[in-house]
Amino acid sequence: MKHYIKHHSWHIIEEGFDPNLNRISESLFSLGNGRMGQRANFEETYSGDQHQGTYVAGVYYPDKTRVGWWKNGYPEYFAKVLNAPSWIGIQIKIGKNELDLNKCKVTDFKRTLDMKRGVLHRTFTATLPDGKQVQVDAQRFCSMADGEVGAIRYAVTPVNFSASATITLSVDADVVNKDSNYDENFWNEVAKEAKSGLALVTVETKKTFFHVTTAITYSLHSAGKAVKGKVKVNKLEKYADNVVSIGLKKGIEIVIYKYAAILSSENHSKKKLADTAKKKLKASADKGFDKLIDAHASVWANVWKKCDINIDGDVAAQQGIRFNIFQLMQTYTGDDARLNIGPKGFTGEKYGGSTYWDTEAYCLPFYLGTSDPAVAKNLLVYRYKHLPRAIENAKKLGFTNGAALYPMVTMNGEECHNEWEITFEEIHRNGAIAFAIFDYIRYTGDEDYLVDFGLEVLIAISRFWSQRITFSAEKQQYVMLGVTGPNEYENNVNNNWYTSYIACWTLGYTQKALEYVRKKDTSKVSKLLSKIKFNEATEISRWKDIQAKMYFGEDKQRGIYLQQDGFLDKELLGMKDLRKEDRPLNQKWSWDRILRSCFIKQADVLQGLYLFDDQFDNDTIKRNFDFYEPMTVHESSLSPCVHVILASKIGYKAKAYEMYLRTSRLDLDDYNNDTEDGCHITSMAGTWMSVIKGFGGMRVKDGTLHFNPYLPDQWKSYSFRIDFRGRVIKVTVAKSNVETILESGDPLEIVLNDKQAKLT
Amino acid sequence: MKHYIKHHSWHIIEEGFDPNLNRISESLFSLGNGRMGQRANFEETYSGDQHQGTYVAGVYYPDKTRVGWWKNGYPEYFAKVLNAPSWIGIQIKIGKNELDLNKCKVTDFKRTLDMKRGVLHRTFTATLPDGKQVQVDAQRFCSMADGEVGAIRYAVTPVNFSASATITLSVDADVVNKDSNYDENFWNEVAKEAKSGLALVTVETKKTFFHVTTAITYSLHSAGKAVKGKVKVNKLEKYADNVVSIGLKKGIEIVIYKYAAILSSENHSKKKLADTAKKKLKASADKGFDKLIDAHASVWANVWKKCDINIDGDVAAQQGIRFNIFQLMQTYTGDDARLNIGPKGFTGEKYGGSTYWDTEAYCLPFYLGTSDPAVAKNLLVYRYKHLPRAIENAKKLGFTNGAALYPMVTMNGEECHNEWEITFEEIHRNGAIAFAIFDYIRYTGDEDYLVDFGLEVLIAISRFWSQRITFSAEKQQYVMLGVTGPNEYENNVNNNWYTSYIACWTLGYTQKALEYVRKKDTSKVSKLLSKIKFNEATEISRWKDIQAKMYFGEDKQRGIYLQQDGFLDKELLGMKDLRKEDRPLNQKWSWDRILRSCFIKQADVLQGLYLFDDQFDNDTIKRNFDFYEPMTVHESSLSPCVHVILASKIGYKAKAYEMYLRTSRLDLDDYNNDTEDGCHITSMAGTWMSVIKGFGGMRVKDGTLHFNPYLPDQWKSYSFRIDFRGRVIKVTVAKSNVETILESGDPLEIVLNDKQAKLT
Repeated sequence: MKHYIKHHSWHIIEEGFDPNLNRISESLFSLGNGRMGQRANFEETYSGDQHQGTYVAGVYYPDKTRVGWWKNGYPEYFAKVLNAPSWIGIQIKIGKNELDLNKCKVTDFKRTLDMKRGVLHRTFTATLPDGKQVQVDAQRFCSMADGEVGAIRYAVTPVNFSASATITLSVDADVVNKDSNYDENFWNEVAKEAKSGLALVTVETKKTFFHVTTAITYSLHSAGKAVKGKVKVNKLEKYADNVVSIGLKKGIEIVIYKYAAILSSENHSKKKLADTAKKKLKASADKGFDKLIDAHASVWANVWKKCDINIDGDVAAQQGIRFNIFQLMQTYTGDDARLNIGPKGFTGEKYGGSTYWDTEAYCLPFYLGTSDPAVAKNLLVYRYKHLPRAIENAKKLGFTNGAALYPMVTMNGEECHNEWEITFEEIHRNGAIAFAIFDYIRYTGDEDYLVDFGLEVLIAISRFWSQRITFSAEKQQYVMLGVTGPNEYENNVNNNWYTSYIACWTLGYTQKALEYVRKKDTSKVSKLLSKIKFNEATEISRWKDIQAKMYFGEDKQRGIYLQQDGFLDKELLGMKDLRKEDRPLNQKWSWDRILRSCFIKQADVLQGLYLFDDQFDNDTIKRNFDFYEPMTVHESSLSPCVHVILASKIGYKAKAYEMYLRTSRLDLDDYNNDTEDGCHITSMAGTWMSVIKGFGGMRVKDGTLHFNPYLPDQWKSYSFRIDFRGRVIKVTVAKSNVETILESGDPLEIVLNDKQAKLT
Repeated sequence: MKHYIKHHSWHIIEEGFDPNLNRISESLFSLGNGRMGQRANFEETYSGDQHQGTYVAGVYYPDKTRVGWWKNGYPEYFAKVLNAPSWIGIQIKIGKNELDLNKCKVTDFKRTLDMKRGVLHRTFTATLPDGKQVQVDAQRFCSMADGEVGAIRYAVTPVNFSASATITLSVDADVVNKDSNYDENFWNEVAKEAKSGLALVTVETKKTFFHVTTAITYSLHSAGKAVKGKVKVNKLEKYADNVVSIGLKKGIEIVIYKYAAILSSENHSKKKLADTAKKKLKASADKGFDKLIDAHASVWANVWKKCDINIDGDVAAQQGIRFNIFQLMQTYTGDDARLNIGPKGFTGEKYGGSTYWDTEAYCLPFYLGTSDPAVAKNLLVYRYKHLPRAIENAKKLGFTNGAALYPMVTMNGEECHNEWEITFEEIHRNGAIAFAIFDYIRYTGDEDYLVDFGLEVLIAISRFWSQRITFSAEKQQYVMLGVTGPNEYENNVNNNWYTSYIACWTLGYTQKALEYVRKKDTSKVSKLLSKIKFNEATEISRWKDIQAKMYFGEDKQRGIYLQQDGFLDKELLGMKDLRKEDRPLNQKWSWDRILRSCFIKQADVLQGLYLFDDQFDNDTIKRNFDFYEPMTVHESSLSPCVHVILASKIGYKAKAYEMYLRTSRLDLDDYNNDTEDGCHITSMAGTWMSVIKGFGGMRVKDGTLHFNPYLPDQWKSYSFRIDFRGRVIKVTVAKSNVETILESGDPLEIVLNDKQAKLT
């Protein structure tokens, strides 16, 4: 835990420079625009500890798998997001000294992330080794108005001297990934250019052959007038720059505007990449920094209009929730179905930047509630496009007949993960992908999604469950053996209740989907069923048989569902029995001890009760919550939010708030000591859900929006906005009353605290 | 499967040179003497595919662990046997051409391993690229009379030419390990020497700082007279040699004798290593090849006297069983309690050359039955010496109070393995180490072993079980959760019957051991119990409680023990349901599919029924055998022998013989396509047990030797020898009669076919 971030409702603020916190701040102050992202590395040279990170969406490298003991079925590669060429470099040399905060005395250091406008701002005064003082004021952004453009305003004022100086404006593609299995360099140089007013480097990923062109230009100003210095250009291995010599005059500010265009072959033909980049660069520079930043900020203003959450009476909570929304919105903008949301977004490269079930279970509800339906739809289409590879993946594991197993971790649809207990057994992810289709349709009403995309995916997943579930002659029931549930502190268990439940649910929903599509478009359904060789009679009859005879572990005496077979044979301890030095378990206990213990990493049975809460009464939820929650150590960032939502539903307000505190400032306060690797982007969606579905009690039932809101005791009031079927609805919850306002769109029937209401 | 080895009762024979079989032959024709070993690499240069291997017992390197996903508790290192400096090199250059079988036409190639005398013999005719033909006749051995000495007789005859030639006699320490995690070189050079008649290199292992000195000398002879050539010497990085120039005369044989001394700092002070090596070398050369080989062969003659098995009417079986005995005897001679038996012995470096539970479960009975009791005792003392590290290992996993968990894989007592489901969960190995103490005492009668060593180990292991077993409030019984049994095709299961059984047995045996030691030496036991802070009242009362209330899974209807909880929920298929293309499962099926299936890698419940067969009636064994054997795929080389023994006991003669065939020629016929990595040394002891305990029905009950022998239908007769408490007993089993002869030692009462008999 750290508490160095200053509380402020719209800004993230760091005051004073502490090199030991630098990697954390680099993560927290990251910028992105859905197309690219940039950790908060310094523009000027920094020889101290840092983790450079520039990321271009959709560009990855298949890193050769590293494994201790190979198991048959493991993938050959782990597709990883790449640290891409850096476009931010502005190196300042004054006399013989380079401006390098690691070698200067630094005062008045302040870093601010303006979340309202999406701008990173940094000011400081540096005293060089020879006593010269410079003041710097740097702003930058990755344009939300044009995802391929970034811009920097970097102002330097010599405080106590006049001297000649050089300013180097670079593109540096000689970068490495922190997360590389064999310390390989992932980029090859394709071309470079350096002339006065331009530096450009095009590189290519090894193996995948993506091209990325990074081009920069710049202008210098002083007292409102352009400054022209003497320009030298350099071209080195994967590197190009312009070195501008100028004279600095005491007290006179020099302002450097640096513009960058970052284009990839995902969006342009390789041949035209450099030319297109240069055109885009010129257009940006012609517009100038102020116009660019205005266009950028106005996109942010529109974003906030739909999704802001306002908390009155708790600045820390206010800052926390906005930070979560801000990071999500700059990670994924939803205009490209080839993209998805890595666990660290654009704030780091850990976990390979790949797609997990987090997307469906956590991020989808966020984008549904805050963005145009097209955004959420693209997340679904992403998986639809990967269906052939999910089928291929299942085949590799011995499944047949078009059964699909979506990967645990993926970039392009192929499985990347290589831990047998996860890769092969944490198959509940397949259920999350099916559920996401239901969740999307429930929220948007877009049932036709089933016709074009949904049904095919659902059948393939149902086919997987149908084969993965086997009949126990002993029990005379169906069982699911050898799985790992969401609680990864259990491996290779039998009859994980959550997985079995979502599997049976999928079988049922697939049948409903088939009925709907058949009514809607008979010829389309026939074509599909014949394409996938669907034997309706035998396949569906098996599904129904499984639904009827599936085994679910239960403890009737306690009135709870059993997380898995044998759970009650464990020593049933609680968090209260753990000593401080045992936590976190995953760093302190050996793996077998964790597995044998009753302690739960993240919601498992409760994850099911959360997803399907309309199928269980409150007493059932309460009994299971009372049993499982005290054993839950929440060592996954995805855990607390589910508990906020369930606790809210069953009236455990104090517990809900306690859990909320764990999620909302997870990164800002570096709760798990790992923010230096990047922010927990996907779990941020859980924080949003905690407020909307937890405190706000938002649900969609039969196409109608329901709210059952309450106010945490610690707050004066809060309000949130929801984008629902073309409307923006603002809900304000105060001590004495709840107000719902239709901010835009057609009138709407809602249910507030179980009573019908009409919003006009 | 391959069938290129010619059948012969005492020789292993390869005729004709097939480069594709070379690595397999290098393994099969390996030599060793308990102190060092040498794969059957060629003396002369060979540029074709080969796997060079020279091994020095007790010298290892801690190779940094390689792992995909780190789990807390994993060891940092995997201690590995090293490929040591090669002493065999005799490079021949004739004119401009080097003798290199990869570049010559090779005819009349024959490789013979004389198992009776322990000598490798190779003859061939090579036609060099320029048409010159040479005949070579090479013999070598690693002396059983002096474990630090090796010698070669290499005779060269120019068939169709006279020419000048050079003969290089080298020591080459510039060697690499095939099995290295990070392609590191494990040796540093310490010193070297090269002068006429001597080449010597001393190297040091990185990190562990073992020193090994390899020194060679030689002499050349022709027509019975010494030949002196012109000598040049070379010293290169980790390399030294003598290059002798001589004239070859058509039809005249030149005989090269090369002598080597290989000494390690395990047995000599580092300072004196080179001098001692030189002295030993001189003494060897002074004796000469013939005397050395005679001394060596006479040790082998004595070995065979005690342990030979003779099979009449089946040369393939005869060759197979002798090969197994031969390999075991040259791997471990039992004079040094610091040494043990790696899975590949001195025939390869796979599995790190480290110690597994194979030693206790398989090898110990072999050495008990064939060697002086001191040999078996040293295997036990090896573990006694590692007790502090086994306690340390358990502590790392969260156990307290002096509980010991012996490692799965080790060189010096520290755990090396890094797969959580094995390292942390395959804990039945601890039971094997306790059982070995019982087994040793049962066979030798040396109960005093408990006083000096045994009890302390037993208590530490019992303390482990006592903590690892927990009480299930649900069952009101004790359970053991999260284990992997001998059948490694199940991971992280609950209540593995075998593990629970051997654990409870340990608790009981430890109490008996304590009683014995207390009677024998009260002061010693008091000292021990106070040293280890044994709280007799509470600890033993818990042990007794566990023994009384331990849960064992059973299917009463079938009358079988359950391998683990939930086993009957599986689809109960048999080997007959597997297609040929499914085998071996571990190469064809993904890991999860193997885990979910009922198929069994190696005896598990049956392993328990084998070890404790006097505690179960034949009907119980039969029912369990009938249930489990048909699901057993025997994909571990340790599996078939257990089935031979049990099948023999319950009268399944055909099944016993079928299983015997799988084990006896496993390496000779390259059954698993992996002999190129080395021979399956530890499972060879299982083959011996198959004959002695299986066909021969040998048991020791209450200090008395029992035999219940039968003759497999396929054989005319067989005989075996047993070393038992100072006697050598020969048992001959023919169609009509069984003969038992006391070949040496005092008269002895035995039980033959359940009848008392006296051997005189």
